[in-house]
Amino acid sequence: KTSGRKVIITCAVTGSIHTPSMTPYLPITPAEIAEASVGAAEAGAAIIHLHARDPETGRPTPDPKVFMEFLPRIKQACDAVVNITTGGGHGMSLDDRLAAPLMASPEMTSLNMGSMNFGLFPILDKMKDFQHDWEPQYLEASRDFIFRNTFKDIEGILKRLGEDHGTRFEFECYDVGHLYNLAHFLDRGLVKPPLFVQTIFGILGGIGADPENLLHMRRIADKLFGADYQWSILAAGRHQMPFCTMGATMGANVRVGLEDSIYLAKGKLAETNAAQVRKIRTIVEELSLEVATPAEAREMLQLKGGDRVSF
Amino acid sequence: KTSGRKVIITCAVTGSIHTPSMTPYLPITPAEIAEASVGAAEAGAAIIHLHARDPETGRPTPDPKVFMEFLPRIKQACDAVVNITTGGGHGMSLDDRLAAPLMASPEMTSLNMGSMNFGLFPILDKMKDFQHDWEPQYLEASRDFIFRNTFKDIEGILKRLGEDHGTRFEFECYDVGHLYNLAHFLDRGLVKPPLFVQTIFGILGGIGADPENLLHMRRIADKLFGADYQWSILAAGRHQMPFCTMGATMGANVRVGLEDSIYLAKGKLAETNAAQVRKIRTIVEELSLEVATPAEAREMLQLKGGDRVSF
Amino acid sequence: KTSGRKVIITCAVTGSIHTPSMTPYLPITPAEIAEASVGAAEAGAAIIHLHARDPETGRPTPDPKVFMEFLPRIKQACDAVVNITTGGGHGMSLDDRLAAPLMASPEMTSLNMGSMNFGLFPILDKMKDFQHDWEPQYLEASRDFIFRNTFKDIEGILKRLGEDHGTRFEFECYDVGHLYNLAHFLDRGLVKPPLFVQTIFGILGGIGADPENLLHMRRIADKLFGADYQWSILAAGRHQMPFCTMGATMGANVRVGLEDSIYLAKGKLAETNAAQVRKIRTIVEELSLEVATPAEAREMLQLKGGDRVSF
Amino acid sequence: KTSGRKVIITCAVTGSIHTPSMTPYLPITPAEIAEASVGAAEAGAAIIHLHARDPETGRPTPDPKVFMEFLPRIKQACDAVVNITTGGGHGMSLDDRLAAPLMASPEMTSLNMGSMNFGLFPILDKMKDFQHDWEPQYLEASRDFIFRNTFKDIEGILKRLGEDHGTRFEFECYDVGHLYNLAHFLDRGLVKPPLFVQTIFGILGGIGADPENLLHMRRIADKLFGADYQWSILAAGRHQMPFCTMGATMGANVRVGLEDSIYLAKGKLAETNAAQVRKIRTIVEELSLEVATPAEAREMLQLKGGDRVSF
Ligand SMILES: [Zn+2]
Ligand SMILES: [Zn+2]
Ligand SMILES: [Zn+2]
Ligand SMILES: [Zn+2]
Repeated sequence: KTSGRKVIITCAVTGSIHTPSMTPYLPITPAEIAEASVGAAEAGAAIIHLHARDPETGRPTPDPKVFMEFLPRIKQACDAVVNITTGGGHGMSLDDRLAAPLMASPEMTSLNMGSMNFGLFPILDKMKDFQHDWEPQYLEASRDFIFRNTFKDIEGILKRLGEDHGTRFEFECYDVGHLYNLAHFLDRGLVKPPLFVQTIFGILGGIGADPENLLHMRRIADKLFGADYQWSILAAGRHQMPFCTMGATMGANVRVGLEDSIYLAKGKLAETNAAQVRKIRTIVEELSLEVATPAEAREMLQLKGGDRVSF
Repeated sequence: KTSGRKVIITCAVTGSIHTPSMTPYLPITPAEIAEASVGAAEAGAAIIHLHARDPETGRPTPDPKVFMEFLPRIKQACDAVVNITTGGGHGMSLDDRLAAPLMASPEMTSLNMGSMNFGLFPILDKMKDFQHDWEPQYLEASRDFIFRNTFKDIEGILKRLGEDHGTRFEFECYDVGHLYNLAHFLDRGLVKPPLFVQTIFGILGGIGADPENLLHMRRIADKLFGADYQWSILAAGRHQMPFCTMGATMGANVRVGLEDSIYLAKGKLAETNAAQVRKIRTIVEELSLEVATPAEAREMLQLKGGDRVSF
Repeated sequence: KTSGRKVIITCAVTGSIHTPSMTPYLPITPAEIAEASVGAAEAGAAIIHLHARDPETGRPTPDPKVFMEFLPRIKQACDAVVNITTGGGHGMSLDDRLAAPLMASPEMTSLNMGSMNFGLFPILDKMKDFQHDWEPQYLEASRDFIFRNTFKDIEGILKRLGEDHGTRFEFECYDVGHLYNLAHFLDRGLVKPPLFVQTIFGILGGIGADPENLLHMRRIADKLFGADYQWSILAAGRHQMPFCTMGATMGANVRVGLEDSIYLAKGKLAETNAAQVRKIRTIVEELSLEVATPAEAREMLQLKGGDRVSF
Repeated sequence: KTSGRKVIITCAVTGSIHTPSMTPYLPITPAEIAEASVGAAEAGAAIIHLHARDPETGRPTPDPKVFMEFLPRIKQACDAVVNITTGGGHGMSLDDRLAAPLMASPEMTSLNMGSMNFGLFPILDKMKDFQHDWEPQYLEASRDFIFRNTFKDIEGILKRLGEDHGTRFEFECYDVGHLYNLAHFLDRGLVKPPLFVQTIFGILGGIGADPENLLHMRRIADKLFGADYQWSILAAGRHQMPFCTMGATMGANVRVGLEDSIYLAKGKLAETNAAQVRKIRTIVEELSLEVATPAEAREMLQLKGGDRVSF
């Protein structure tokens, strides 16, 4: 698995975790999101994972109209796989979260494999000045927030996006139980290999960023999915590069981007998503591994093709 | 940790997972619950973990009046530590779940360390005949159920029960992230060692029943809590005895009882909670370990004492 | 692997590690060794692992004539599989070690999967009085002793016993590298599944008696041998019962006997090998597992049969 | 442990595993060894691990005179810590192996923590043409070779080099048991923290090159040595860079050099030791870690100083 293989780099360019006051480099407007995506693709990302933000306030938005302002631009300017979030942002209903993907019918969306707490509020102890009122409110609200993904919700997404649109999934697994949930759907025949299993480390509410956890997630995924999956790694904040690197040495694909970390190196903000892509690409190539092209990623993950989307 | 130590046996006599049609031996009425508890205590359980059920239908109920029908009887008849659920049952609100513990002011309650899916519905594929209408509805409803335990909820319980009543906790950890959540509260000084960490295996929605997971939970708990915790094990269904045994060999305390498994041996229903206590006690003693008395458990866990409760 | 399976109990009745002054219950004479073996078999051991000792001094001896004094008696009195050491004792040459197995042509012998230090000398810090001069000398000599099992030695045993006599092996693995050595011979086609992999914990020079090591050995054996092996556990001294128990819960077979531990419980010497067999059998059966008969062990391990030996 | 720390790069420039026919770039003569060492130091290696070879044939030699031809040159041309092997090469006696270190009285030597098989012979299946007769004989002899390091041998080295010369050690651990052996000497007070623990992966006879093993060695080392050790990684052949990288992300120091791998990248021979140092340095620095200078390495490992040696 580790030799002769291609490494898929996903770049999650903006997400819904960070807020504008945390970094001036967060892509906010459709133009910025499109530019960041294309830059990441040119730097070597085969998949672009996308959220939208209100162009005025930078607040995460589920509005399909906003998505439709950047999706076509990205499609036109590069060949990367477009992957739209179904997780959305704190406070959005499931219907909100699905509006854009159902309209866009993308090759891939994220699919979160369980309900969980998702605590952003500890940032408030370190950061006091915000440009927008919604920012501290949004972070504080995470104290009582449940990231909702019931078994029924997941069944619904598998049906409405997977079956009806031929969309395939980045299965986001924030803890060991999420792997078992995915195995449950595999047993029931509701998901089909090759599974793209995104294991996530360092979110408060999910599994922590300890190398023991990284290896354990792989160990259990190997037991549950055998050879029929593509493993990917993302880690929050300062763990981003070390965890992606560790994963790459063990056979994983990697995800970088400002959704996951706003830094490029210790104490240094990333000025672009592309800079993070270039950094992990350098490491991956120093390890005698090759980076997958979008076409190779489409084949590895059996995607329907960039021409079969609705944008 | 494994030699010269005492093993605390907890018995969870009825819970809210199993329904009356699954076994004729499930304690339902206050009299049955009291009798099962006393029997378990006499067999060697130092802690009795308690839920209540509607005496007519067997449905889990949060009604404090029902709790008050068996709590005094148990207290009168044995010295075991009374531990009341704050998890309640599917469909109960947090206020419902807290009503009985707030009235009873027990030495110990459970405290669930995160929100999660909790899937009981797969049983419906194997079981068709039910005595009560609520049973299949209850099981099916788990498909869309979130077991709610936000950071704010947990803070509230720590304040309202821990601080105000001197109640201490069985911290129920269904996955690795729950250990990190507990560490978060430890870092903030909201929980105090020695922590009683109940690690739970085999619930759909949480970590699975694989020995790798058992050891991994210990590994991470060791990293997060050092020597300042008492580890306990419970596993669902047929994994109950093997996992408790495995845990006992590695320094853990154990939890048995019909809440967790309705079986005594392969294919053989447990006719009493006491029978499960006796079985694990036999194994523990064959391993040259001693079973903790209620007094020893109180000291190990620093409980306030059986005379400082409100029942 | 853990349910519906049979557990093979091996009993190693005397070995070459303990010396007569350590316990009055160590079988020494051919009559004692035969009696201990038959007792162990009657208690539930399907395999008897055998060394010989000088009847006068109790010192381990490779002398085939001594073996021939007890082998026929065991064969006559019970149906257990006779398994003869090829490890012998400290200070014996490889030719010495092979003399008895080559003469007896047993169904099974041990086969040690690598060279290693084997330190018995720390006992000398705790024990001062010995009945025989050879005892402290033997223990002290282990400071400079190498337990010799080169790749060439192993090839020779595979040829001379395996190929020429149809003898199969208890592959003794004292560390992770020994599993890789076994995989090396598997790759070369010199050993045939189902492999009987005896993993050994707690010998100074080999892997220690930590549950992490037990699970790690299984993890690597699973990777190297897939489903084509029978796992067995033995642990030195006070770790014997906890490790066998832990292993049993995870799918392993178990080995007990006075070779591995002279104790039955904490602070209590085992008066017979059979007592240790009975204890582990009780635990195994409490876990709803069944103990394998000699016939079942022969089938699981594909042995040539008790009637095709030379004694 | 992983942030703000310095990473010590050791470079093992020639070793005794590879033979001249395997690569034209292996340093053979004292001039070549000196040049390779200085180049590695200039590229960022803080420690140079050294063996000697017969200048005519390239065969590993224990001859102190040969060592003395390159040691002063290295000392004169760079500030790196000089670390001399006590492992020597196949076929050398322990006295042979100690001759050069005892004469040179270096700051550091390797110290192998157990006896083991060390199988180089499988290379003979892939490689047929050799420049020197000794090469295939040397490789074939490894089939029956034991790398001798008894407890008594180790005690002797600790006394003769450690105590008498103030030399400190790169404790070479080829398997889990070697960590326990080291803990044995720590318990007896014969070794002093901070221990420099070199864990070695992928030698036939020792633990294999699986990421599970890398993490397991760390796990056990953490248990045995707590915070009082410096962990280092080396892996054989194509595993060199991935394992060093993985280790670096987990808090380890790294060892590269032609002793461990003759490659720089997949299918590409390393033309110099410095090229391997530069590659791992690039990766380490991309991970926001800093490379330790020789002075920093001396402080981390509490070495006696480059001016207190006999060359
Ligand atoms: Zn996202
Ligand atoms: Zn409960
Ligand atoms: Zn033996
Ligand atoms: Zn060396």
